[in-house]
Amino acid sequence: MSAASNRQVLLARRPCGIPQAEDFTIVQTPPPALGEGLVMVENQFLSVEPAMRGWLAATANYAKPIQVGDVMRSLASGKVVASRSDAYQPGDLVTGWFGWQDMAAVPPQDIVRKVTETDLPLSLSLGVLGLNGITAYLALTRAGEPRAGETVVVSTAAGAVGSVVGQVARLLGCKAIGITSSQAKMDLCTSAFGYTQAINYTNEDVSARLKEMCPEGLDVYFDNTSGPISDAVRANLAAGARIVVCGTASIASWEPAPTGPRVERDLLVKRARMQGFLAFDHVDRYEATIRQLVDWIRSGDLTWREDVLQGFESCPDAIAGLYRGENMGKRIVQIR
Amino acid sequence: MSAASNRQVLLARRPCGIPQAEDFTIVQTPPPALGEGLVMVENQFLSVEPAMRGWLAATANYAKPIQVGDVMRSLASGKVVASRSDAYQPGDLVTGWFGWQDMAAVPPQDIVRKVTETDLPLSLSLGVLGLNGITAYLALTRAGEPRAGETVVVSTAAGAVGSVVGQVARLLGCKAIGITSSQAKMDLCTSAFGYTQAINYTNEDVSARLKEMCPEGLDVYFDNTSGPISDAVRANLAAGARIVVCGTASIASWEPAPTGPRVERDLLVKRARMQGFLAFDHVDRYEATIRQLVDWIRSGDLTWREDVLQGFESCPDAIAGLYRGENMGKRIVQIR
Repeated sequence: MSAASNRQVLLARRPCGIPQAEDFTIVQTPPPALGEGLVMVENQFLSVEPAMRGWLAATANYAKPIQVGDVMRSLASGKVVASRSDAYQPGDLVTGWFGWQDMAAVPPQDIVRKVTETDLPLSLSLGVLGLNGITAYLALTRAGEPRAGETVVVSTAAGAVGSVVGQVARLLGCKAIGITSSQAKMDLCTSAFGYTQAINYTNEDVSARLKEMCPEGLDVYFDNTSGPISDAVRANLAAGARIVVCGTASIASWEPAPTGPRVERDLLVKRARMQGFLAFDHVDRYEATIRQLVDWIRSGDLTWREDVLQGFESCPDAIAGLYRGENMGKRIVQIR
Repeated sequence: MSAASNRQVLLARRPCGIPQAEDFTIVQTPPPALGEGLVMVENQFLSVEPAMRGWLAATANYAKPIQVGDVMRSLASGKVVASRSDAYQPGDLVTGWFGWQDMAAVPPQDIVRKVTETDLPLSLSLGVLGLNGITAYLALTRAGEPRAGETVVVSTAAGAVGSVVGQVARLLGCKAIGITSSQAKMDLCTSAFGYTQAINYTNEDVSARLKEMCPEGLDVYFDNTSGPISDAVRANLAAGARIVVCGTASIASWEPAPTGPRVERDLLVKRARMQGFLAFDHVDRYEATIRQLVDWIRSGDLTWREDVLQGFESCPDAIAGLYRGENMGKRIVQIR
């Protein structure tokens, strides 16, 4: 790809529920202009996140909706190739809000951070050392507040966030139980992602299995799914349990909200709490979190898996694939 | 009533849902024996609580179920008339787990406390200075964590707990909005119970009214109802809101749990939390809480209403009446 042309993935139409391949289009445009104060980044890796569904919905959630015709909003990692900001020099590796495109000319505030752990692959800055790893660590420690010896249950345990949660829970002295969707993912959970045990929700009774695995009840539920999986987990809370609401991967559409058993009595009887968590509220803790995660990676205590798709053509169907449960570990698209 | 006979309200059969008059029977038995270490209490006031529904359900919640044939479990207040415990003397006023009966011979651990604020009516020890007041104060301050200037919304705002929550919220510098079921209760909320505004959920659109009253969203929801009222409140949360789950008065039966809109997306988008609270977990804070509430009563900052039924014959239907929304303020039964 020469810098004379810029490939971009645009939103072609507003998705209905989970974004599908047909909702996007790939175009070629001239490279962007490097306006005053901007930084030109050549992307190498593009991120794919379950949260993109929310960013693409018509109604604002915590982020402004992406408009039809816009470049798909995304975290990406790449190299600075030109700069009109004193804070960045050509050759710097950076991660930030660069979108699904080859080249981005961005203001410094769109750059999340310089990637200085150059002994580690750049792609990690989108996964275990990116928003997924930060979310896993901060949501678990700050909203889950696990204490050593407690039981932590995680849904989408083999996903980009769940794979980090299991390992951090183990490092904090907890017993981690992972809920996932296949034997291969269960094996990965127990062999690589810190989980003592795993449950396949597609062919096991989640509530009955949890009753066997933690008869005294579970202390922390790191919820990436909502839906019937979470109902089954909630039936097994210990007194004082904490539910971290981090994602809702099992819900096809929130307009209108699907119904399920009301939760108040479980929360009251068990004096439990349920709390939504977004890493964006804790930007001041990103650097310290990254340092902790980098330390654990260098010491061999924290590992990761990546699901690397190749080329721009993989982008349009990449989000839908996450919701089909295709990936083990962090899904990214490599474009060079 | 002479001490030669002891009237008691017994559970006649297991209630199905909300306990009804036919679920109880009134008997006369000989007075209890004063065994070693016991304290004989002559009850004057018996408490009636929404939570009794849970105590009477077949499945254990946080308390052991009451068995058919047992004296109805209840807080009550009265006078010590004989004692084989050094800690209590005849003439002491006490409140504790004495049951729906004339006389109780109880071990000291069933006595919640001596009532020493003898300048105030003894009946307050079951309401604003009892478990209701303690629950209102501790649940609001510890789970709701209101900050001055915030908006606090309360369901069953004119009830035994809600009437205290509104006033404490105001004393802490918050704006309190009360949700209740009649014009008379709305008037009481705004004239006596500290609420700036009130909503009648029986003939107003709760969500639309809240949108008008707090367009920026509400910060604390003190939830005594669950159900559609709570769904309407949850649609109006400010970022970082706290929902205190204190009761579920609008739900006729939890077996099975009724369905409603799933809450995860509201909690996630608003980074809100929802937490069950039971005062029983905080016994070490009771005395300090009572002292605070007594101070506010003596200074004229905290008021109350009582709904006093007369005589044992009022007991069997008294719980059902709470769920019919009959009472304004704390419901008690006076038996002498």
